[in-house]
Amino acid sequence: MGNCCDRAASFFGPQKNTNVRVGLPAVCFVWQIAMVVLFGVFIRYDEESDTHWVEFRRENNITSDIENDFYFRYPSFQDVHVMIFVGFGFLMTFLKRYSYGGVGFNFLIAAFGLQWALLMQGWFHSLNPETGKITIGVESLINADFCCAGSLIAFGALLGKVSPVQTLVVALFGVTLFAVEEYIILDLLHCRDAGGSMVIHCFGGYYGLAISWVLYRPNLHLSKRFHGAVYHSDLFAMIGTLYLWMYWPSFNSAITDHGDGQHRTAINTYLALASSVLTTVAISSMSKKGGKLDMVHIQNATLAGGVAMGTAAEFMIQPYGALIVGFCVGIISTFGYLFVTPFLEKYLKLQDTCGVHNLHAVPGMLGGFIGAITAAAATEAVYGAEGLRNTFDFEGEFENRTPGTQGGFQAAGTCVSIAFGLVGGVCVGFILRFPIWADPGDDNCFDDEVYWELPEDEEIVPPVLEYNNHMIHKHQEISESNFSVDQS
Amino acid sequence: MGNCCDRAASFFGPQKNTNVRVGLPAVCFVWQIAMVVLFGVFIRYDEESDTHWVEFRRENNITSDIENDFYFRYPSFQDVHVMIFVGFGFLMTFLKRYSYGGVGFNFLIAAFGLQWALLMQGWFHSLNPETGKITIGVESLINADFCCAGSLIAFGALLGKVSPVQTLVVALFGVTLFAVEEYIILDLLHCRDAGGSMVIHCFGGYYGLAISWVLYRPNLHLSKRFHGAVYHSDLFAMIGTLYLWMYWPSFNSAITDHGDGQHRTAINTYLALASSVLTTVAISSMSKKGGKLDMVHIQNATLAGGVAMGTAAEFMIQPYGALIVGFCVGIISTFGYLFVTPFLEKYLKLQDTCGVHNLHAVPGMLGGFIGAITAAAATEAVYGAEGLRNTFDFEGEFENRTPGTQGGFQAAGTCVSIAFGLVGGVCVGFILRFPIWADPGDDNCFDDEVYWELPEDEEIVPPVLEYNNHMIHKHQEISESNFSVDQS
Amino acid sequence: MGNCCDRAASFFGPQKNTNVRVGLPAVCFVWQIAMVVLFGVFIRYDEESDTHWVEFRRENNITSDIENDFYFRYPSFQDVHVMIFVGFGFLMTFLKRYSYGGVGFNFLIAAFGLQWALLMQGWFHSLNPETGKITIGVESLINADFCCAGSLIAFGALLGKVSPVQTLVVALFGVTLFAVEEYIILDLLHCRDAGGSMVIHCFGGYYGLAISWVLYRPNLHLSKRFHGAVYHSDLFAMIGTLYLWMYWPSFNSAITDHGDGQHRTAINTYLALASSVLTTVAISSMSKKGGKLDMVHIQNATLAGGVAMGTAAEFMIQPYGALIVGFCVGIISTFGYLFVTPFLEKYLKLQDTCGVHNLHAVPGMLGGFIGAITAAAATEAVYGAEGLRNTFDFEGEFENRTPGTQGGFQAAGTCVSIAFGLVGGVCVGFILRFPIWADPGDDNCFDDEVYWELPEDEEIVPPVLEYNNHMIHKHQEISESNFSVDQS
Repeated sequence: MGNCCDRAASFFGPQKNTNVRVGLPAVCFVWQIAMVVLFGVFIRYDEESDTHWVEFRRENNITSDIENDFYFRYPSFQDVHVMIFVGFGFLMTFLKRYSYGGVGFNFLIAAFGLQWALLMQGWFHSLNPETGKITIGVESLINADFCCAGSLIAFGALLGKVSPVQTLVVALFGVTLFAVEEYIILDLLHCRDAGGSMVIHCFGGYYGLAISWVLYRPNLHLSKRFHGAVYHSDLFAMIGTLYLWMYWPSFNSAITDHGDGQHRTAINTYLALASSVLTTVAISSMSKKGGKLDMVHIQNATLAGGVAMGTAAEFMIQPYGALIVGFCVGIISTFGYLFVTPFLEKYLKLQDTCGVHNLHAVPGMLGGFIGAITAAAATEAVYGAEGLRNTFDFEGEFENRTPGTQGGFQAAGTCVSIAFGLVGGVCVGFILRFPIWADPGDDNCFDDEVYWELPEDEEIVPPVLEYNNHMIHKHQEISESNFSVDQS
Repeated sequence: MGNCCDRAASFFGPQKNTNVRVGLPAVCFVWQIAMVVLFGVFIRYDEESDTHWVEFRRENNITSDIENDFYFRYPSFQDVHVMIFVGFGFLMTFLKRYSYGGVGFNFLIAAFGLQWALLMQGWFHSLNPETGKITIGVESLINADFCCAGSLIAFGALLGKVSPVQTLVVALFGVTLFAVEEYIILDLLHCRDAGGSMVIHCFGGYYGLAISWVLYRPNLHLSKRFHGAVYHSDLFAMIGTLYLWMYWPSFNSAITDHGDGQHRTAINTYLALASSVLTTVAISSMSKKGGKLDMVHIQNATLAGGVAMGTAAEFMIQPYGALIVGFCVGIISTFGYLFVTPFLEKYLKLQDTCGVHNLHAVPGMLGGFIGAITAAAATEAVYGAEGLRNTFDFEGEFENRTPGTQGGFQAAGTCVSIAFGLVGGVCVGFILRFPIWADPGDDNCFDDEVYWELPEDEEIVPPVLEYNNHMIHKHQEISESNFSVDQS
Repeated sequence: MGNCCDRAASFFGPQKNTNVRVGLPAVCFVWQIAMVVLFGVFIRYDEESDTHWVEFRRENNITSDIENDFYFRYPSFQDVHVMIFVGFGFLMTFLKRYSYGGVGFNFLIAAFGLQWALLMQGWFHSLNPETGKITIGVESLINADFCCAGSLIAFGALLGKVSPVQTLVVALFGVTLFAVEEYIILDLLHCRDAGGSMVIHCFGGYYGLAISWVLYRPNLHLSKRFHGAVYHSDLFAMIGTLYLWMYWPSFNSAITDHGDGQHRTAINTYLALASSVLTTVAISSMSKKGGKLDMVHIQNATLAGGVAMGTAAEFMIQPYGALIVGFCVGIISTFGYLFVTPFLEKYLKLQDTCGVHNLHAVPGMLGGFIGAITAAAATEAVYGAEGLRNTFDFEGEFENRTPGTQGGFQAAGTCVSIAFGLVGGVCVGFILRFPIWADPGDDNCFDDEVYWELPEDEEIVPPVLEYNNHMIHKHQEISESNFSVDQS
C-alpha cells in the first residue's frame, strides 16, 4: 500500500532531492575521525579524574574523596544531561508526523556537538600553555552540554524544515560561535552567567531565528497537513516539558559556586518556574473561548521562568524577586505565542516552528538584563564583604570592580550575545541555502517520511478518515439519495 | 468537522456552563500576586543558601562546602520533584481522553501549592520570632513538594470530575490542612514520619475520598464512553508508575537523618516495593480469567509498598520486615481495586477515579500503624543507646519518652491524619458544591474537550468506529440481506 | 466486539493453553515467602546503614556524615535503577502490540530478581563467617540491580515468545548463574569489571541467545502481523533508549573507586556513547534507500559505546581511546542489526527479538577484550605507582601481579562469561521446553492479548483498516464495477 505522503507528493509534482545517503554518513565519519585525532592531540583527564588524584589529594591536604568536584556536580550534570536529550528532544515531538525527527535529530546534534564543545571551550578556557593540553572533568561535561543547548534551541526554530546534514552544520557553527561569545562575555567582560540566560538562551534563540529568517519558505503552507499535533504527540511533548521544568534548578546551579552558590541558585530557579506556571495558565485561559487551555502555552511558556533566571539566580535576588521574574516572563512568553509568533511569520517572514522567540530569545534577553539590574543593586550590606567578592568573583584584575560597573558589563554581555546570534545566524543561514544539503521541499516539511524508515501501518488518523470520506463519496454516487451521510 | 463530543452534548441536552475564562485567570493572578507580597514580607534564604555561608562555615568550624545540607539532600529533592510532576502527573494519564487534564492540572496544582506550602510550613516550623522571617533551604523545598503531594493524591480521587478552578481550591485548603495536621503530628505529638505515611498519604487519601463523597454524581454513567483507557494511555501511565516506584526510596529518605538515617530508609523502601510487585502480580493474575494481568493493578498496587513504609522505613524494621510489609500491602491494595472500589461506588456513593483509597488511604493508614508498632518494639539492644535517641529524637522535652510511649503517639498521629482528612474533605466538598466553579456536567466528565483546546484530528478510535458502524448500518438499509456484516 | 486476535486464533485452529492463573500466582507467592524467610535468616544492615553508624563513625575517626558511602553512590544508584526499570523496560515497548509485556514483565523480572540477587551476591561476597549474616548497603542495591540486568538482557532475546512464568525461571537461573560467574571473574580471577561488559552484558547476551536458540519456533511467521512497530510504539522505545544512553556514565561508574575512579569512568563512558551515536547514524543512513534512518539502529546501536566501555572505562584509556571504542562498536553493532541478526535467524535458527546479539553479546565481549588490552598496556608512568595499585587493586595476594598478567586474566574472564552464558542458557532453555509453562502458540507471539487484560477499544490501526477493506470487498460484490476502489 502506498502511503498518503507519496500520493500527496505526486500530486504536487516531482519531489526535491532529499537523499542524504552520501552526505550524512560522510559528515558523520569525517567529523568523528577528526574528533578522535583532535582529542588524541589535546584532551587529557584533569587532576580530579586522573589516577594521580590520590597524590594530588595528599599534596593539597584534601581530607576526603568526597571533596572531589565529581560529588559536587555529578548529580546536577546528570539532570542537565536529561534536559538536553529527553527535555529538548521530547519537547520537539509535538508535531504529529515529525516526532522521530524531533527526538532523533536532537540526539544526533547533541552527541555531535558536545565533542566539539569540549575542544572549543577547552581551547578558550583550560588549555595548559606549558603542556598544550586541555584537561577535562565533570564541569567540562556540563559546559559541553550547555554549549550544545545553544544549537538545540536554534534547531527548535528550524524543526521540520532542514535536513539532518543541515542540523549538523547548524551545530558545528553554533558550538563555535558559542565558545567565542562565551569567552568574550565570561572572560573578557567578566560577566556572571551561571544558567546561561545570555550565553545559551539569548544567543541560541537569536541564532535560530536569524537562520530561519534567511531560510524563509514562502510555500510552507503546502506542508500544512503535517503542521499540527495529535492528542498523543502533545502528551509526548509534555514529557519534555516536565523534565526541563523539574531539572531547571539543576541547570542553573550546575556550575555555580560550591556551597551557598548552588544552593541559592536552585531555590531561586524553583520559585521562578512555579510562578511562571500560574501566569501562563492565566493568560492561556484568558485568550481562548470558554477559557480553554492551549497545550502549546503549557508546554513552553511555563519554562520561561527558568530561562529568565539563568543569570540572576545565583545573586541575592531574594525569593520574592524570583517570583516576580517568573510572574512577568510567564505573561510575556504566553503573549509571544499568541501574538508575536504569528506577527513574525506574517510580517517579518520568520517561520519559527517551536516558538523559540518566546521561550528562549526574549526571556533569555530579559534574563540578561534582570541579571544586570540585580548585579548593579548588590550591596555589601546584603551580601557581606566576602559574599560579594565570591559571588561576583571580584578577584585578580577585577578586584576593584563595583556592583554598578558589573551591572553595566552584564548588560553589555547581553548585547554581545544578541549580536553573535543574529550575525552568526544570518551567515550560517546563507551557507544553508546552498542547494547541496538535501533539505525537504516545501510540500514535504514536518514529515518523518523524508528522512526515516517508517513502520508500514501508521496510527495517524488523517489518511484513514480521508479514506473513509473517499468511500462515502463513492457510495453516494451509487446509492444516490437513499441515505444522507452525516458529514458533520 | 464537528467532533463527536459536541454531537454527544447536543444529544444529552444543553451543556452545563464550564467556562473558566474569568475564574481561572482571576484565581491565578490574585493568588500569585498574594504570593509575591507574602514572600516579600516573610521569606528569606537560610544560612546555608545565603552569601554569608562562607562566614557561617568559618564560625561553625565546618570543614568543607560539601557539608552544606544541599549536598545531603539535593539529589533526593530532584527525585521527589520528578515523582510529584512526572510520577503523579503521568500516573493520571491512563484515561483515554483525560490525559491532558491528568498531567496538566497536576502541574498546575503542584506549582500553585508549593508556594503556599513554603509559607504555611514556614510559619509553623521555621518562623524566626526575632526577625519575623521564614528562612528556606533545600529541605524546605522537599517539604513543600511533600505538602503538595497530599493535594495531588486528593486530586486522584476527583480526576475528571472537577474544573481547574476547583482543583486550585482543593490545593489551597489541602495545603493549609496539611500544614496544621503536620504541625500537630510532628511537633506536638512528636511523631516520626519521614516518608509521610500518615501526614501525606493517609491524610491526602481520606481528604480526597471525603471530597469525592460530597461531590457524588448519580449520573456519572453518562460519561461512561470516556471512562476507560486505550492501549497507549495505559503505557503513558506506566511512565508515572515507574518513576514513582523507582524514586520512592528517595521520597522516604529525603528528609531523614544524615548518614545512616537516609541510608537505611532507602534500603527498606527499595525492598518493600520489590515485594509488593510480586504479590500484586499474583493477586491480579488470580483474579482474572486465564490469569491475565490487569494494568490498573500493575500501575497502582505495586506502589503500595512505598506508601506503607513511609513511617517505618527509617526505623530498624530489618530487611525482612520491609519485605513482609510490601508483601501484605501489595495483596491488600490489589484486593482494594478488585472489590473495595466497586463496593464504595455502589454502596457508599463514593466515586474514586484513581482508586486512591487502595493506593494511599489504606496503605497510608497501615503505614502509620506499622510505624507505631515498629517504634513501640524498639530497644536499646537493637538501636544502641545513641542510635535510639537519634532515630526517635528523644531530646529536649521528649528526653524521657520511651519507645512504647512513642508507639502510642505514632498511632494517635495516624488517627489525627485520618480525622483531618475526613473532616477537612467534607468541608471542602461542600464549598466545591457552590454552583460557581464551572465544573463539568455528568455527561462531560473525563473529557479534555471541556477545558483544553484539542488538536483537530484525534487518533482516539471510538469516533472512527462509531462512524464505521454508522456507515454499516446505512448500507444494510440499502443492500438488505445481500451480505452479512461481521459485527462481532 | 470480539477483537481481531480472537478471530485470527480461530482461523489458525485451537489455541495453545496460555492460562497462567495458577502458575504465576503460585510462583510469586512461594518465591516471595521464601525471600522473607531467607532475608530473616541472613540479611541485616551494614555498619553504614545501621543506627550504630554514629558510634562506628566516632571509632573510625570519620569526620562527617557526608563520608557515608550513601553520599558517594546514591545518585548513581538511582540512575542505575532508572536504567533497569525505565531504560530496559521502555526499550522493549517498540512492538506494536507487546508494549505492556515489554515494560510489565521487565518490571516483574527485576523486582523478583533483585531480592534473589541480594542473597546470592551476599553469600558469595559479604557473608560474615562469624555471625552468618550478610550485611547490605547502597552498593549492594546497585549490585543487585546489575545482577538483574543480566536476566533482563536475556529477556530481550525472548521478548514476546515466553510466558511470564518462564521469564521468572529465566531470572531465577540468570541471577544464580550471574552470581557464580561474577564470583569467579571478580574474586578468583581478580578481574576489574566495574560496568560489567563481561559479567553483565556478555553473559546476559549469550545467556539469552542460547535460551532462544533452544526455544526456536519454526512457525513464528504465524505471528508476523504483530511483529513490527507502529509510529508511537517506536517513540515509547526512544524513552528507554535515551534513559539508557544518558545514565550509562552512572551505570559504569556506580561501583568504581571513590574519587578519581568514579570521575574518570563517567567521562570515558560519556565520550564513547557520543561517538557511537555518530557512527550508528552513518551506517544506518548508508544502508537504506535515500539515506533514511532506521529507528531500530538509533534505538539500539547508539548504546553500544556504553556496553563496550563497561570494563575499560575506569582505566586510563584516555578520552580519545574512549572515542575510538565508541566509533568502532557503533559500526559493528549497526552492521549486526543489518546483517547478523537476519543471518542468525535464517541459518542458525536463532530468533533474537531485540537483537541482544548486537547490543549486548558482541559489544560486551569486545568490551571485555578492550579491557584486557587496556589493562595490559597500563604503566606506572601513566598511572603513577599508587594509582596503578588502586586502579587494579594490586593488594593482598595480588600484590605482585603485573599489568600484563592482569590483561591475560581479564581476557580469561571474558571467556568465562561467554561459557557461562552459553552453557547456562542451553540448560535453562531445555527446562523451558517442558510443556508446563503456558507459553504462547506460534500464532500468538508478540501479542499482549494473551497475558493482559486489554482496553476494549484499541487504537492500533490494522484491525480498523482490515475492517474497512472487508467492507470494501463486500461492497464490491454488491455494486460490482460501478466504481473502482483505490486499494493502493
